[in-house]
Amino acid sequence: MNVLIKGADVLTLDADGRLLRGCDIAVSSRNILAVGEIPRDFEPDETVVGRHRLVMPALFNAHAHGPMTLVRGWAEDLPLERWLNERIWVAESALTRADVFWGAALAACEMIRSGTAAYADHYFWLEETAKVVEASGMKAMLAWCLFGRGAEKEVGHASLQKTLDFARLRHEGAEGRLRVALGPHSLYMCTDDFLRKVADASHRLGIGIHLHLSESQGQVERSLAEHGRTPVAHAAHLGLLDGAAHALAAHCACVTAEDIAILARKLVCVAHCPKTCMKLGMGLPPLRRFLELGVHSALGTDGPASGNDLNMLEAMRLAGLGQKHESRRPEELPHMQILKLATQAGARALGFANSGVIAEGKRADLALFDTDQAHWIPAHDLAASVVYASHPGDVTDVMCDGRWLLRNRQLTTLDEERIRREAQTRALRMVKAPLRQVRQYPG
Amino acid sequence: MNVLIKGADVLTLDADGRLLRGCDIAVSSRNILAVGEIPRDFEPDETVVGRHRLVMPALFNAHAHGPMTLVRGWAEDLPLERWLNERIWVAESALTRADVFWGAALAACEMIRSGTAAYADHYFWLEETAKVVEASGMKAMLAWCLFGRGAEKEVGHASLQKTLDFARLRHEGAEGRLRVALGPHSLYMCTDDFLRKVADASHRLGIGIHLHLSESQGQVERSLAEHGRTPVAHAAHLGLLDGAAHALAAHCACVTAEDIAILARKLVCVAHCPKTCMKLGMGLPPLRRFLELGVHSALGTDGPASGNDLNMLEAMRLAGLGQKHESRRPEELPHMQILKLATQAGARALGFANSGVIAEGKRADLALFDTDQAHWIPAHDLAASVVYASHPGDVTDVMCDGRWLLRNRQLTTLDEERIRREAQTRALRMVKAPLRQVRQYPG
Repeated sequence: MNVLIKGADVLTLDADGRLLRGCDIAVSSRNILAVGEIPRDFEPDETVVGRHRLVMPALFNAHAHGPMTLVRGWAEDLPLERWLNERIWVAESALTRADVFWGAALAACEMIRSGTAAYADHYFWLEETAKVVEASGMKAMLAWCLFGRGAEKEVGHASLQKTLDFARLRHEGAEGRLRVALGPHSLYMCTDDFLRKVADASHRLGIGIHLHLSESQGQVERSLAEHGRTPVAHAAHLGLLDGAAHALAAHCACVTAEDIAILARKLVCVAHCPKTCMKLGMGLPPLRRFLELGVHSALGTDGPASGNDLNMLEAMRLAGLGQKHESRRPEELPHMQILKLATQAGARALGFANSGVIAEGKRADLALFDTDQAHWIPAHDLAASVVYASHPGDVTDVMCDGRWLLRNRQLTTLDEERIRREAQTRALRMVKAPLRQVRQYPG
Repeated sequence: MNVLIKGADVLTLDADGRLLRGCDIAVSSRNILAVGEIPRDFEPDETVVGRHRLVMPALFNAHAHGPMTLVRGWAEDLPLERWLNERIWVAESALTRADVFWGAALAACEMIRSGTAAYADHYFWLEETAKVVEASGMKAMLAWCLFGRGAEKEVGHASLQKTLDFARLRHEGAEGRLRVALGPHSLYMCTDDFLRKVADASHRLGIGIHLHLSESQGQVERSLAEHGRTPVAHAAHLGLLDGAAHALAAHCACVTAEDIAILARKLVCVAHCPKTCMKLGMGLPPLRRFLELGVHSALGTDGPASGNDLNMLEAMRLAGLGQKHESRRPEELPHMQILKLATQAGARALGFANSGVIAEGKRADLALFDTDQAHWIPAHDLAASVVYASHPGDVTDVMCDGRWLLRNRQLTTLDEERIRREAQTRALRMVKAPLRQVRQYPG
């Protein structure tokens, strides 16, 4: 399919940070064929009027738990420990495999509508989420969340095996849109022995690891008491950060200078999820230090159980506001850098390296915004407006791998009406079911 | 006009925090006639289908500079001092009276579309903003921003006189929708002598004062050095906080325990604007202490020059995230309390005391949200969804004093297309004009 976008404002996110006004973009098959000067022999199947449209690279969400849409709003205003022990893990005791499918589908609707084309997901029954990725046309790196200690250890082992079986068949499947990672929940919910097995499997198969790491000061203190090392140092010690495929570590909210050096040296990608950090009072990671010292950083929404939505536009805004606030330096984390974290840095973190820039030969992963609205006017700085004034209602079109997922504000690949109804019914059933406590946060 | 809203979900924000499912609301003339049980003889002129709609009190923005929409995105990633000296105050040197009208009109479009029915504005040529208030059907408390020192002192005196003349004619005008306040910019941009004159006029005429107060630690230190008092204590000393009409103080980001006691004792309303506090690295006020100690607090967006938008939904979210983060306590500032700050507390701050609750006899100031969208599902906690997941694209209808300002996502009182064009043209002219530095932040 050849698509021509005519006369749009294009936020390229290239090295020069160019914003091209009234510019044409030609898309051929999965890639961007040309930007600006269009070859004379290009024959579009579809021409998009770019007037009053800003085109930018689609967003990459580096840490999410999509099916947790089903528990959105189920655990408000609670500390992390009670949030998990009393609400989230209890509600999940009633989760079925089919719930995961519908929760993932609801998440896909929400993500596409807010300009996101790809995400790193971390949850159960990843083959159900994979069905959604396949059907929706999105890209994803999927991990089965593994609890590897106590009564759940056997389930953890079985789920690791299922992930490995799934990866053998499906890693880099769905026309290359589907990637697989190993998903130990965290150091504190797995034994060292279990984590060494995960590391070993990762090394053998060349598959990455996606885990939660160093989320709170309490976790750091317990790790020091138990292992004599910080969570980051302990993860390195266990071999979790040594894979040929780089590790993706969510949060790293509380880190030492030595931790940062380890993250940089091991080429770990940190997925910063500012909304969860703030809402659960975890503290904010020193993003500037990460970037200065070469820690590969990207942005994520985390799950809607903590953050209530899957809105990467908001994740960008909160990343900027959070860093400026923490440092008391308004010049911290300029908005162009934030845009790159949410696009090309995320793409690299998920293993889709050819995305996140609008330039010839790059993947056609695009988000279009309607800028003819009061809150976008005047157009002094459209890049700043994306980061600090835009909202999902502005997103008119989303393209992934050259295919429309959203066109004129309509989802093109998913039956949204049915998904909304199924998800609502299942979510209500989940929280009304007989619930039980399944595991305990080691607080 | 009689309006019947049938079968909506109603977030009343009453003392019990009731959410009424599938509930009817009758509006007669400017007020809510009934909620739930509708009188048999009620004859609606219009019936609104409430299915998939959440109705809540419309939002009250307690601190804004509406016409600064014209400099949205004009001063990004800069510290407060450079932001004012090099960008904002320079661009404003080219501002005309007509620019203020169109900038205020653009602000009104944006505010209404994000669920806001009323605002406290602080800018120049308030009679232009008053025209917009009159035409739009919104409610507002308007202040002429007064600079009262140095070369500008004479202009400051003249503007104070213009405000007083305007107040005599128009305070409580526009069917009671228009209120006037005196608007000294801040202690640091006015001499004590000038501020005493403002205080005196406020006392004589029973008109409130709206000012910026204690925005940064630097301001506190300079005030201590210059006056031997904190900004709050010095404002009290000058009589600025003693009016029969309570003072409205924006920010109060850096305050001592004694300052908080003064704010409580003097019945000052603090307008907390979390986005500006974070984006300009000013620090966040101790909102919990304010509330515990009885300081009347409300929420504002500040101007789009600092915050890029006028979105009160976002102000609520940032207020919650900011307080939870600062205290590292996720239980801090529960979302029901945030909703009250953004509605009934703001209404009281602006002097429209009968608003902010959906109950019989209250003013019909309402905002309706389309909840049949992916990011609102499931409906475990609709109040939490308003605070942590909603965006302006969800707002379908806004009513102020029983009159629709937005209906089915269309503005009913303003010519938005023309406003967008005029504002865009004027904003570009402003920043291309020969600019000059007009005043200096005493940094």
